[in-house]
Amino acid sequence: MNNFQFKNPTSILFGKGQIKNLSAEIKKESKILMLYGGGSIKRNGVYDQVKEALADYEVIEFGGIPSNPEYSTLLEALKVIKEQHIDFLLAVGGGSVIDGTKFLSAAALYTGDTPWDMLTANKPITEGMPFGTVLTLPATGSEMNSGAVITRREIKEKLAMMGPGIFPQFSVLDPEVIKSIPLRQLANGLADSFTHVLEQYITYPTGAILQDHFAESILQTIVEVAPTVMKDPSDYQAASNFMWSCTMALNGLIQQGVPGDWAVHGMGHELTALYGIDHARTLAIVLPSHYRYHFEAKKLKLAQYAERVWNVNTGTIEEKAKAGIDKTEDFFHSLGIKTKLSEYTDDYSETGTIVSDRFTQRGWLGIGEHGTLTPADAKKIIEMSY
Amino acid sequence: MNNFQFKNPTSILFGKGQIKNLSAEIKKESKILMLYGGGSIKRNGVYDQVKEALADYEVIEFGGIPSNPEYSTLLEALKVIKEQHIDFLLAVGGGSVIDGTKFLSAAALYTGDTPWDMLTANKPITEGMPFGTVLTLPATGSEMNSGAVITRREIKEKLAMMGPGIFPQFSVLDPEVIKSIPLRQLANGLADSFTHVLEQYITYPTGAILQDHFAESILQTIVEVAPTVMKDPSDYQAASNFMWSCTMALNGLIQQGVPGDWAVHGMGHELTALYGIDHARTLAIVLPSHYRYHFEAKKLKLAQYAERVWNVNTGTIEEKAKAGIDKTEDFFHSLGIKTKLSEYTDDYSETGTIVSDRFTQRGWLGIGEHGTLTPADAKKIIEMSY
Repeated sequence: MNNFQFKNPTSILFGKGQIKNLSAEIKKESKILMLYGGGSIKRNGVYDQVKEALADYEVIEFGGIPSNPEYSTLLEALKVIKEQHIDFLLAVGGGSVIDGTKFLSAAALYTGDTPWDMLTANKPITEGMPFGTVLTLPATGSEMNSGAVITRREIKEKLAMMGPGIFPQFSVLDPEVIKSIPLRQLANGLADSFTHVLEQYITYPTGAILQDHFAESILQTIVEVAPTVMKDPSDYQAASNFMWSCTMALNGLIQQGVPGDWAVHGMGHELTALYGIDHARTLAIVLPSHYRYHFEAKKLKLAQYAERVWNVNTGTIEEKAKAGIDKTEDFFHSLGIKTKLSEYTDDYSETGTIVSDRFTQRGWLGIGEHGTLTPADAKKIIEMSY
Repeated sequence: MNNFQFKNPTSILFGKGQIKNLSAEIKKESKILMLYGGGSIKRNGVYDQVKEALADYEVIEFGGIPSNPEYSTLLEALKVIKEQHIDFLLAVGGGSVIDGTKFLSAAALYTGDTPWDMLTANKPITEGMPFGTVLTLPATGSEMNSGAVITRREIKEKLAMMGPGIFPQFSVLDPEVIKSIPLRQLANGLADSFTHVLEQYITYPTGAILQDHFAESILQTIVEVAPTVMKDPSDYQAASNFMWSCTMALNGLIQQGVPGDWAVHGMGHELTALYGIDHARTLAIVLPSHYRYHFEAKKLKLAQYAERVWNVNTGTIEEKAKAGIDKTEDFFHSLGIKTKLSEYTDDYSETGTIVSDRFTQRGWLGIGEHGTLTPADAKKIIEMSY
C-alpha cells in the first residue's frame, strides 16, 4: 500500500425527502445563487422542492448551464455573483452543473488575470466560496469530491481543475430523482461510475487488499442494480444503491494508497471536445482498446477483476484477463452503449493523429499509472477504437 | 436503504514516515499538550519521532493514561489544560489515549457542573478544543470517528460520549508501529475491529447492497491478514491493511443507511467494568451467545456473512447462519482469544443478574437493532456466555 493523505469534509444528506433539510446547511441571511441546467428540474419537481426549502433566503437563479459546462456561460454567472454580491452557491443538477459551480466557487475568489488560467496552471485550488449541491443525476461523483472539468468550445478544450478549496460543503442525494431521468442518462451514469472505479483499480497490484475489495464492492453493486435501474428507475432499492455507488466511486476513498490510471478519461475528454459525444460513451469507446493495448501491464488486475466481479473462475491469468475486458464491453452494450467510435461519427479516420497531437501540444508525454503512455500510444489506442 | 446524514472531516496521514509531517497540521504558535499512555511510545521510537516533529512548538506532556481511560486521571489532565492555557491536544497512543483526549477536548469547553454529566446526558457533543492523534495501536477506529468511551472505576461505570465536536482534526497512521505491539494487543485489535463491523452488519436486510459489500470487504481483509499480522507484525503489507481496516471499520462509512446493533458492546462494557477484562475479549465472550440467542432475527444476515466472508456455500439458511457463528468463534480462538467468561474469572455465577440490573438502573430497557433487547435478555445472553 502506498502512503496517502485523505480528507473529505463534504456533508452528505442521503435519502427520500432530504431536500427539505437544505436550509439547515446554509447560513441564515445568505444571498444564494441557485444554478441549474436545461430546466429538467422544473419538470421533475426538484425545482419546487428546492425553492420551498429556501423560502427564507434571498435566491437569484442562473439556469442554462449545458452538459460539459461551458466556460463562456460560466463567465456570465460569474458576473452575476460579483454584481449581486452572492455569498453562497447552490448547484441543482448533475455533474455538469456541479462542476460549473466548483469553477465559479474558485473563480469568485481568483485574483489572477483570467479564470481560465486555473485550468491550465495544473496547480491545486486551495480556496473557493462556499457552495452546496442537490444532485439530480448520479454519475460523476462530483457531489463529494474536489474536482471539476470545464469545456471551452471556442478552442475545443476540456480541462480539469481540482483542490481542497472546492469540496462542496454539503450535497443532498435523494434517490427519488432517478425515476425521472431519461434512460440514456441513466446508462451514462452507470457506465461513468463503473469506469471511475476501473480507472483506480485496473492498474497493477500494490498489496492494497482493502482498497481492492472496496473497488470490487462498488463494481459488484453497479452490475447487480444496473438491469433494475434501466428497467424500473422508480425501484428505490436499486436507485439508492446506484446513487451511493456513484458517489463512492469517486469521492477519494478507493484511490487512497493505490496508483490511478485515468488515461481513459484523458483520451475520452478529447472525443467529447472533438465530436460532442457524451462523456460516459467516450469512456466506453476508449476503455476496451486501452486495456487490450496495455494487456501485459494490466493483466494481473484484469484477471482478479474477472474473478471477483464477473465470477470467471477458470482459465489462465491471460484468459481471465481477456474475459474481464470482454465482460466489460458486454456490460456497456447491455446498457445500450456502443463501444466503437465509428458508431458515433463518420469523421474518425484522423482521430488517432488528432488526439496524439493534442496530447503533445499539451505536454502530456507520459500518462497512466506508470506515466509511460505517450501520444503515440494514444494514437494507436484511439485507432483500435475505430 | 435508510436515510442518513454523513460527514467525516478528519484528515488522515497514512504510511511510513508520516509522523514527521505532523507539524503541517498544527497551527504555528500552538501550545500543545501531548497525551500518552504507559510509556510504550518511549520504547518503540514513536515518542522521539513526535518530539522531533514538534520541535518548533511549546509542548507539555501528560503520560500515564490507562487502558479504559480513567475519569480521575483525565481530570488531572484537564487541570493542566486549564492552568497551562493549552490550545491544542495531541493524543499519541491507541483507542484509550485517543478517547481520553476526546473527553478532554469536550471537557475543556464544557460549562456544566461536572464533565461526567457529558457521559450520562446522552446528548451529542457539539464542540471541543482542537486535537489530533498519532495512532500506535490499530483497533478501535477512534482515530477517525467522533465517539469516546470513558471509565470511572470508583462507581464501576464505562460510558460513551459522541458528537460532531470531537472528531480529530487529523490522525497519523504509520503501520510501522505495528511491529512493536505485543501479540496480545494485536489479537485484541483484530477481534475488536472485526466485531465493530459485525455490530453494523449482522442485523437484518435493508437492501443496502453497497454497505453490505463494504462491510464484507473489511471482514475479508481482516480474515486474510490476521495470520500474517500475528506471525510477523513487521510484514508491512499485512500491517497496513490491518491498520486501514480498523479505521474503516468504525469511521461511520459502513453504518450509513443500515441499522446498528451494538448490544455486544453494551454487554461487553459491563464485563470490563466488572472484571477488567480487555475490551476486545469481552466482545468475543458475548458475541457468539448474542447471535445464538437472536438466531431467528439475525439468520438472514448471518447466512449471507457465512457465504461471502467464510465461503460457506452449501446448506440451508439456518445451517449457513450457524456456520457463520461457529466460524466467528473459531476466528477468535485462532487469535488466542477465549470466548467463555469462566475462562477469565471464577466469579461469574451472578454476572447475568448483575449486568441485567445495571441495564435496568441505566434505563436500557430495549437496545439492539430492533430496540427490543431487554435486561432479561441480557441476563440470558451473559449466562449463555459462562
